[in-house]
Amino acid sequence: MQRRLVEFAAAREWEPYHTPKNLAAALSVEASELLEIFQWLTPEQSARVMEDPESAHRVRDEVADVLAYLLQFCDVLGVDALSALAEKIDRNELRFPRSAPGA
Amino acid sequence: MQRRLVEFAAAREWEPYHTPKNLAAALSVEASELLEIFQWLTPEQSARVMEDPESAHRVRDEVADVLAYLLQFCDVLGVDALSALAEKIDRNELRFPRSAPGA
Amino acid sequence: MQRRLVEFAAAREWEPYHTPKNLAAALSVEASELLEIFQWLTPEQSARVMEDPESAHRVRDEVADVLAYLLQFCDVLGVDALSALAEKIDRNELRFPRSAPGA
Amino acid sequence: MQRRLVEFAAAREWEPYHTPKNLAAALSVEASELLEIFQWLTPEQSARVMEDPESAHRVRDEVADVLAYLLQFCDVLGVDALSALAEKIDRNELRFPRSAPGA
Repeated sequence: MQRRLVEFAAAREWEPYHTPKNLAAALSVEASELLEIFQWLTPEQSARVMEDPESAHRVRDEVADVLAYLLQFCDVLGVDALSALAEKIDRNELRFPRSAPGA
Repeated sequence: MQRRLVEFAAAREWEPYHTPKNLAAALSVEASELLEIFQWLTPEQSARVMEDPESAHRVRDEVADVLAYLLQFCDVLGVDALSALAEKIDRNELRFPRSAPGA
Repeated sequence: MQRRLVEFAAAREWEPYHTPKNLAAALSVEASELLEIFQWLTPEQSARVMEDPESAHRVRDEVADVLAYLLQFCDVLGVDALSALAEKIDRNELRFPRSAPGA
Repeated sequence: MQRRLVEFAAAREWEPYHTPKNLAAALSVEASELLEIFQWLTPEQSARVMEDPESAHRVRDEVADVLAYLLQFCDVLGVDALSALAEKIDRNELRFPRSAPGA
C-alpha cells in the first residue's frame, strides 16, 4: 500500500511538495476533517455515525486520507510505523499497569 | 496490532472513554503533536529531522500515537482502514491523471 | 463583538451544542482549515498569499472563524482572553530574555 | 496587544521564523493543545473545567497561546481580525435566519 502511494505521487510529480513538514501539516489537516464530522455530536450520536450512509462514506474517506498521509510521511523519513507502535505498546504496558480485577 | 491495542485498552478499563468522537479528537491532537516538531523548521531542516536522535525518537513516538488512535477509532466503528485507502486510491487515479511524460 | 456572537448563537438556538468541548473541537478544526491554505506552499509563497484575491478572501474567512470560536469558547467558560494573554506575555518576558544587542 | 506581541518577537529575533505558514501551523498546534484538555471529558465535565484551579490555569494558558499566534499571523499578513469577523457575521445573518419564535 505504501509503495502504491509513493508511485501515485511520483507519477503526478508531487514529490517536491512532499517534505516531511508539509506531510505532517496535511496529516494534521485531514485528522481535523475527520474530527469535524463529530464536532457537534453527542457521545451517543457519535457511536451511531456509520448508520447514515453519507456520514459513513465521509468517515471512510477521511480515514483513508489520514492513513495515506501517515504512510507518505513515514516513507519520506524512513519510519516503520508498525514497529514504532509495537515499541510504544511495550513501553506503555510498563507505564500503565492493568486494572486489578474487580477494581 | 489492532487486537493488541483493543486488549490494551480493555485491560485498563479505558473503553468508556473511547467513543468515536473522543478518539477522533485524540487522533487530531496527536497529529498536531507530530506537526509541532516541524512547525519552525525550514523545508530543508524538516528533511533532516531523523539525523538528530532526540528528534528521531519524538517523530517515531508521535507516529506511533497517531497510528494507535487511528486503529482504535477504526476498531470502534468497524472501519477497515486499508480497504478504505485502496478504494480512495482507485478513485483518485481517475480524478488526477498521471503527468504526461516530459511535461 | 463577543456579545454579538452570543446573540447570534442564541437567536438560532445553537447553545445546547456549544459545550466547551465542542467549541474547542470547532476552534481546532477552523485553525486547521486556515493551515490547509498554506500546507503545500513554500515559505516565500506563504508570504505572498494575500496578493491573490481568492486566497486573501479564504484567509480572512478562516481568521474570522477561528476568532469566532475562540470568543464563544471564552464566553461559555468566562475566560477573558485579552487578560490571559497579557499575563502570559508578562511571564514570557521573564522566561525568554531579549537577545543582547548585536548578538 | 498586537503591537506588544510584535515587539516581543522582534526583541528576541524570532521574526525569520514567523512566516504566515509557520504561524498558521503554530496556531493549529495551540488550538489542539486546548482541545487536549477536553478530549476524554463528557460534555458535563467539560462545562465544569474552570472549577479545578489547575485545569483553569491550563485553559487560560492555551487560550493566550491561541490568541497570541492568531494576532501574530494577522500582523504578518495585514489582516484585521475584528473586521473580518464583523463581515462574516453580516454574511451569516443572511445565510442562517433566526429560528422562528416558539419553533
